[in-house]
Amino acid sequence: MTQPSAKRFPAPKIDSLPEDIRTRILAVQEKSGFVPNVFLTLARRPDEFRAFFAYHDALMDKEGGLTKAEREMIVVATSAANQCQYCVIAHGAILRIRAKNPLIADQIAVNYRKADITPRQRAMLDFAMKVSRAAEEISDADFAALVAHGFSDDDIWDIAAISAFFALSNRMANVTGMRPNDEFYLMGRVAK
Amino acid sequence: MTQPSAKRFPAPKIDSLPEDIRTRILAVQEKSGFVPNVFLTLARRPDEFRAFFAYHDALMDKEGGLTKAEREMIVVATSAANQCQYCVIAHGAILRIRAKNPLIADQIAVNYRKADITPRQRAMLDFAMKVSRAAEEISDADFAALVAHGFSDDDIWDIAAISAFFALSNRMANVTGMRPNDEFYLMGRVAK
Amino acid sequence: MTQPSAKRFPAPKIDSLPEDIRTRILAVQEKSGFVPNVFLTLARRPDEFRAFFAYHDALMDKEGGLTKAEREMIVVATSAANQCQYCVIAHGAILRIRAKNPLIADQIAVNYRKADITPRQRAMLDFAMKVSRAAEEISDADFAALVAHGFSDDDIWDIAAISAFFALSNRMANVTGMRPNDEFYLMGRVAK
Amino acid sequence: MTQPSAKRFPAPKIDSLPEDIRTRILAVQEKSGFVPNVFLTLARRPDEFRAFFAYHDALMDKEGGLTKAEREMIVVATSAANQCQYCVIAHGAILRIRAKNPLIADQIAVNYRKADITPRQRAMLDFAMKVSRAAEEISDADFAALVAHGFSDDDIWDIAAISAFFALSNRMANVTGMRPNDEFYLMGRVAK
Amino acid sequence: MTQPSAKRFPAPKIDSLPEDIRTRILAVQEKSGFVPNVFLTLARRPDEFRAFFAYHDALMDKEGGLTKAEREMIVVATSAANQCQYCVIAHGAILRIRAKNPLIADQIAVNYRKADITPRQRAMLDFAMKVSRAAEEISDADFAALVAHGFSDDDIWDIAAISAFFALSNRMANVTGMRPNDEFYLMGRVAK
Amino acid sequence: MTQPSAKRFPAPKIDSLPEDIRTRILAVQEKSGFVPNVFLTLARRPDEFRAFFAYHDALMDKEGGLTKAEREMIVVATSAANQCQYCVIAHGAILRIRAKNPLIADQIAVNYRKADITPRQRAMLDFAMKVSRAAEEISDADFAALVAHGFSDDDIWDIAAISAFFALSNRMANVTGMRPNDEFYLMGRVAK
Repeated sequence: MTQPSAKRFPAPKIDSLPEDIRTRILAVQEKSGFVPNVFLTLARRPDEFRAFFAYHDALMDKEGGLTKAEREMIVVATSAANQCQYCVIAHGAILRIRAKNPLIADQIAVNYRKADITPRQRAMLDFAMKVSRAAEEISDADFAALVAHGFSDDDIWDIAAISAFFALSNRMANVTGMRPNDEFYLMGRVAK
Repeated sequence: MTQPSAKRFPAPKIDSLPEDIRTRILAVQEKSGFVPNVFLTLARRPDEFRAFFAYHDALMDKEGGLTKAEREMIVVATSAANQCQYCVIAHGAILRIRAKNPLIADQIAVNYRKADITPRQRAMLDFAMKVSRAAEEISDADFAALVAHGFSDDDIWDIAAISAFFALSNRMANVTGMRPNDEFYLMGRVAK
Repeated sequence: MTQPSAKRFPAPKIDSLPEDIRTRILAVQEKSGFVPNVFLTLARRPDEFRAFFAYHDALMDKEGGLTKAEREMIVVATSAANQCQYCVIAHGAILRIRAKNPLIADQIAVNYRKADITPRQRAMLDFAMKVSRAAEEISDADFAALVAHGFSDDDIWDIAAISAFFALSNRMANVTGMRPNDEFYLMGRVAK
Repeated sequence: MTQPSAKRFPAPKIDSLPEDIRTRILAVQEKSGFVPNVFLTLARRPDEFRAFFAYHDALMDKEGGLTKAEREMIVVATSAANQCQYCVIAHGAILRIRAKNPLIADQIAVNYRKADITPRQRAMLDFAMKVSRAAEEISDADFAALVAHGFSDDDIWDIAAISAFFALSNRMANVTGMRPNDEFYLMGRVAK
Repeated sequence: MTQPSAKRFPAPKIDSLPEDIRTRILAVQEKSGFVPNVFLTLARRPDEFRAFFAYHDALMDKEGGLTKAEREMIVVATSAANQCQYCVIAHGAILRIRAKNPLIADQIAVNYRKADITPRQRAMLDFAMKVSRAAEEISDADFAALVAHGFSDDDIWDIAAISAFFALSNRMANVTGMRPNDEFYLMGRVAK
Repeated sequence: MTQPSAKRFPAPKIDSLPEDIRTRILAVQEKSGFVPNVFLTLARRPDEFRAFFAYHDALMDKEGGLTKAEREMIVVATSAANQCQYCVIAHGAILRIRAKNPLIADQIAVNYRKADITPRQRAMLDFAMKVSRAAEEISDADFAALVAHGFSDDDIWDIAAISAFFALSNRMANVTGMRPNDEFYLMGRVAK
């Protein structure tokens, strides 16, 4: 059974895509062994595809005060609150790999307050969740709580921007019925 | 790192438990290879332990119009809404095994509306979720939606009772900081 | 006029019930002068009936740091939040009797924050309400607030377990359209 | 124990009040045997007192398509949703008397959807509750539901205006810690 | 296009109104150059009209610890939370004029936490919003926050009463589909 | 008085910016007569700036089934629900200009259900609001409602993508304390 809404926005054929997009998709396939569905679904709109992945890469691949595992924690926690199946399952896989921890993604997805994380990571996720669910109430007290854990202004921007970017991403995935590839479910759960 | 609250209600030693409870726990250990933490945490209160598992068994092990996999779907969907880490992860494992489907538990936990289930199962989960989150608004129209899918009055009672029982269970797990055993995360994900 | 949903799960005839259940019901009738409807409605399912009342008795009838009136306060406050007519009206009657106070049940049912209770009882109800409505957010700060009022770990378990048990009970009463017996409304309101 | 907030806005002495207000209060005392606290609390502000009771009388004492008992049903249902102790308990008493029904007020206060009322009254309360809790979403479909039960445009205005007036009243009672007089709890519960 | 619901409660003809109401309306017209629609809509019910404006004037026109601009801030902030088009747009105009500030009304309507107001005004609006949206939770801590900013008990009553009065007003405007007059949108935006 | 949080992420100096970003900013200034603050605030992060405006332009400047005024309606309605001061006030100005209607932006910001829009636009905004606030519940029925008004699949993608993009934008503006330029408040309100 497939979600009917997934049928509304069928993925374009890879061969029909603009050169740069096809190249990126083939590179991902080469590296991962499969094409994550987010690439196929968003390729329907080349300009939006380019902006989406440029934004994604600017936030998730750069160096900075947050580890790559911590960035994925933000994605998993906020995407779970937004009930986004694609993002929780795909980024849960990436989080398990980045954190080298087979348990952490499920813990954070269900209730990040009970996950095996440091108090600093807990403060990071409290802020990310407030940006995701009630950004209009963010106040100086919220910044102070992060500063108390040693986060810099640029770290705070990163936390907020990742939460905000996945607010966009979660909504597109839910509207398009974007389906997590079967490969993600088991990734990072068993030692190789 | 362990949740501090988990320390507030430490599990009693198995040797110190009443005979019937120790016997049940050892039987579970024999069968599963480990003792699920719900048995150890609740054993602090023998009378409540006995009532809890009697209730559980009456709802989950009996015959009836719902398959055992469907009962576990109800547990996973409502426990996810209640953000109960123990129940989602432990019963997610049982659901994967009962349904012989390695993907279904994660799909239902994140957003049951997008899961690969039948329309009948979707109606079952819609009802279970309303019992879990807004039982005060249950009306004849909710019953009619189930009847239209062929559910009997006893099936409807079962759906409601499972949702209600895990309303209790989720709250106890969240208050006691009940931790899912590491074994659950991988169960039912790989063919044996 | 009777709620139509109450018709869906009619009470079984007392004569048709298993011996132990019939005996318990007749004992209640002997003591109270009537059979509270919760006994009749749940008797449809003997195994669940036995587990339900075993759980209830383990929580409500035992000795401990909470008075019996305080236990009923928890029931009335959380059942009001869950809009459970049976539990508010039946346990409101019991609360009036246990507390020897004809006003307290209505005060707590409408807004426990404005009721004539001690600060210790207010802290107890704040915790019970959080267990009932947002158990996923219970944190060490919530435990600390109770400890500051002298509650022991076992008292805290009791508060949580009563709130959790009536989370179950309220949902079953709302789904089955369980009707409070007319006798409850006036009990404990007038001196004998 | 008294609510501390009730101390913030102490009732003025009756003798110190303007003539017209003192006269009204004494008339109520003469008729009821006690002075309902709403009169004393609001007398702190004579102009607001006069406007409040003029508005109240215009809505609650006039003739029209709604019976006086039905008007009180609206007050009890919406005041319960707003957790206003004074209004639920005081107007619950008036409702019992107006409806000559000792059970109806408690039923409506806890869950109006389960109360022994007619389908027409249920539609009236559904509308009143939407005005009370989500007036911004009132649409033509809500009016149509009332028209289908025979309510006139003036009846609809009355339902809305009573709900709106008690939105004001509930807030003032909650802020001032207005306490229901002890006399209200038992009124209308026993045949004279 | 006009909102259909606005058609349900058409304004009566000014000539048909009782003398005192017609006089008031003509005086407003004389002063403002147009008749704000709230006068026409509510004139359908002369007794309610008189009580409404008597209450309004008692709260908004009197002297006291709050400036007239501050009173309008309360109206705009709470009416925006209640999504009341008439009150936000009409009182936004009055606020711009009273505060001699063309920006303040839009800032407060969208997110009062980000508006260019003093910390004292922020505390005033925090309290007004809690009265508007969750008066049942008002506690001594809320009063203490106002006292810390120098508000007197009578100021606190004023804040609460204005918030409560517009809880009524917003609901009536939303139900009647009360339309802000075109004149309000530009008032106070440009220097004369 | 300026929001303290606005101080946390000060705008970089225009001269210090990368060539392409400086060029874009100067072009906007040339055209508008001022630099909207969103350009300055986001310029702190050049890569994110480029992705943000590429995404924005792909959605807002393209041709398609939605008029440019309709796209701005989506921005204003969803940004008001998210209480984003910058987006409501800046895009409110653009909406007034695009729609050649000085009233429409304020109407939509306060309560889009009461705005002077067509039924087709109302359906568009209902969908956009659901994407913004509860995308996890989007179902085939929501698509059907749009199709019934003649929206194509690409139109539906546009509505969803604009709502999703401003979910990101609103969160960044709220976290950074992005201030609407004074110029926006009056734009489009008076005929030139």
